[in-house]
Amino acid sequence: MNSFFRSIDWIDGAVVMIDQTRLAGGEVWLESSDVPERVSALRRLAVRGAPSLGVAGALGAVLAAAAHDPETDPARFAAAVQAVRAARPTAVNLSHGVDRVVGRSGEGFEAMLKEALSVRDEEIAACHAMATRGADLLITMCGDRPLRVMTVCNTGALAAVEKGTALGVIEVLHERGRLSEVLALETRPLLQGARLTTWELARLGVPHRLVVDSAGPFLLSREQVDAVVLGADRIAANGDTANKIGSFSLALGARHGGIPFVVVAPESTIDRATPSGARIEIEDRGPDEVTSFAGIPIAPGGTDALNPAFDITPAGLIDVIVTDGRVVRHDLGEALDTVLREPASAHIDTTSINDSGGNA
Amino acid sequence: MNSFFRSIDWIDGAVVMIDQTRLAGGEVWLESSDVPERVSALRRLAVRGAPSLGVAGALGAVLAAAAHDPETDPARFAAAVQAVRAARPTAVNLSHGVDRVVGRSGEGFEAMLKEALSVRDEEIAACHAMATRGADLLITMCGDRPLRVMTVCNTGALAAVEKGTALGVIEVLHERGRLSEVLALETRPLLQGARLTTWELARLGVPHRLVVDSAGPFLLSREQVDAVVLGADRIAANGDTANKIGSFSLALGARHGGIPFVVVAPESTIDRATPSGARIEIEDRGPDEVTSFAGIPIAPGGTDALNPAFDITPAGLIDVIVTDGRVVRHDLGEALDTVLREPASAHIDTTSINDSGGNA
Repeated sequence: MNSFFRSIDWIDGAVVMIDQTRLAGGEVWLESSDVPERVSALRRLAVRGAPSLGVAGALGAVLAAAAHDPETDPARFAAAVQAVRAARPTAVNLSHGVDRVVGRSGEGFEAMLKEALSVRDEEIAACHAMATRGADLLITMCGDRPLRVMTVCNTGALAAVEKGTALGVIEVLHERGRLSEVLALETRPLLQGARLTTWELARLGVPHRLVVDSAGPFLLSREQVDAVVLGADRIAANGDTANKIGSFSLALGARHGGIPFVVVAPESTIDRATPSGARIEIEDRGPDEVTSFAGIPIAPGGTDALNPAFDITPAGLIDVIVTDGRVVRHDLGEALDTVLREPASAHIDTTSINDSGGNA
Repeated sequence: MNSFFRSIDWIDGAVVMIDQTRLAGGEVWLESSDVPERVSALRRLAVRGAPSLGVAGALGAVLAAAAHDPETDPARFAAAVQAVRAARPTAVNLSHGVDRVVGRSGEGFEAMLKEALSVRDEEIAACHAMATRGADLLITMCGDRPLRVMTVCNTGALAAVEKGTALGVIEVLHERGRLSEVLALETRPLLQGARLTTWELARLGVPHRLVVDSAGPFLLSREQVDAVVLGADRIAANGDTANKIGSFSLALGARHGGIPFVVVAPESTIDRATPSGARIEIEDRGPDEVTSFAGIPIAPGGTDALNPAFDITPAGLIDVIVTDGRVVRHDLGEALDTVLREPASAHIDTTSINDSGGNA
């Protein structure tokens, strides 16, 4: 296993990325320097996960500049950039990645490419920092034995370019010989756990078993798991955390079973403008994802469904928040506003992450 | 809606039953007086649910007697009876139903048929008693307003001949105009909630929405539900309850949200020989149900899974146990060994349940 697997990268003048819609059926890599092709891939969710989308946006803007010189053909450049941005209008990271590259368009193509690669490298550096801090933390909390870790959804390189958030922690534990097994929740309705996390774990050689989501809290109560490690979609200023639906049930199970519940997410996930989880609106994604399963209807025609995309775990049920900049131990009375952020370089060696041929 | 819908019955010399493997795709009724045909239906799970299986066993033994007179052809009768019993060797109720009818084989065919119909009528009477007690209880606990009830798996007439256990309570609340909505959990891996409970609720005209299992505990914490009502596979002497996987997570969610958690099951589910849930062994049904659906793989080939069929909810997380004989309010300090069983006739009128044409 090459630990520099990247789900999206820039190689020899083209964007190369794995098609996540084809997993786990098969491993299909898409390689293109064509803007419309990239936009179409973004639209059909071949790329997902906030960090990966940021890199997709940055590299998409580079492709736009390669096709239409911003100096000599600004109208076409602007239209191509807008097509990238509009492929997933609600994905904030996608726009941010585009904006950073477009901001350098007056300095020439090489400056834009350099900026895009910086977006990529910063995401990767953040993942390495989280993975190292998280692994250190779990060994401190759980002791010197191989750990059984439960996780939900997909938080690996597929979502976050290289290494990932919660899955990065699991990868480092495995590299250190401190991992016994991962229990991966299937993550209904879209089955990211069954389709993507199992694929990443198999690729890493990490022992794992798949579990239906509703079994998670029970297994936590039966001494079958040492820690729950998962990602976050948004963390409010008070530490309340929005994440994939089912995360809250695991927090209840972990608390009941006396097991550490650890959120791993980049600093960029922390939303200081939102004081608490009560202010986070929960998207309902409509009934179709629930009433069908892998494309097959599973409920009588016309059945309605409630389909919250994520849930909110109150800070009081979260033992630790690990970011690329700090470890905040709620279990020891710490809070986001009492623990300062350290520079990421305090924890990782960034010299190895500038190799752009990682996913070959 | 005819409230005397029966999933299995004896009509005009034949066993008539709905094919549960065809739901919710279509409503297919099987009618046969042929033993091998009944055995084959039992084997492929056209009938499920302990009470329905008890009736299937009793009526199967009647068909065996109709085909092979126990007096003149005891060897063939015994072989036919054994085939019914062996169709589902671990289903205790199936054997019990068979045994009761076989015990009357010295008294002639009519005595055997009468015994089988008694098995049926006792199950139905138990359901009516539970439904009435449960509805009374919920109105007492939650007050005089339309209730939003969450349930898991399938506990209706399909599982329990007529009316059902937890779903019977829901039906009576609906008949009394006290039900606002049911949130039905889909119940992975076999999706009994998505396939069967939605079908029964639609048939009853009860407003309902389907929910992925992992959303249950979160919705309980967000004031979207007034009570959780569910069945039981086995209740230990101390009140610990084995039920479909996911039940424990709902108990945690209900306790966190301050919502009543009510188990509805016949007295026959109480196992006095098992002192507590710690002594109940949990069957693992193997990885295939989790890693595939309807024959389509949803995880990479070779993925292993942990597949506990049920979980154990400790008595301390159960507010009330409702049976056909009593209401045991843990929330008021009562326990199974401090509340005496009343006769079922104290609660229901049994004159209406001897109509054998209910499911026409």
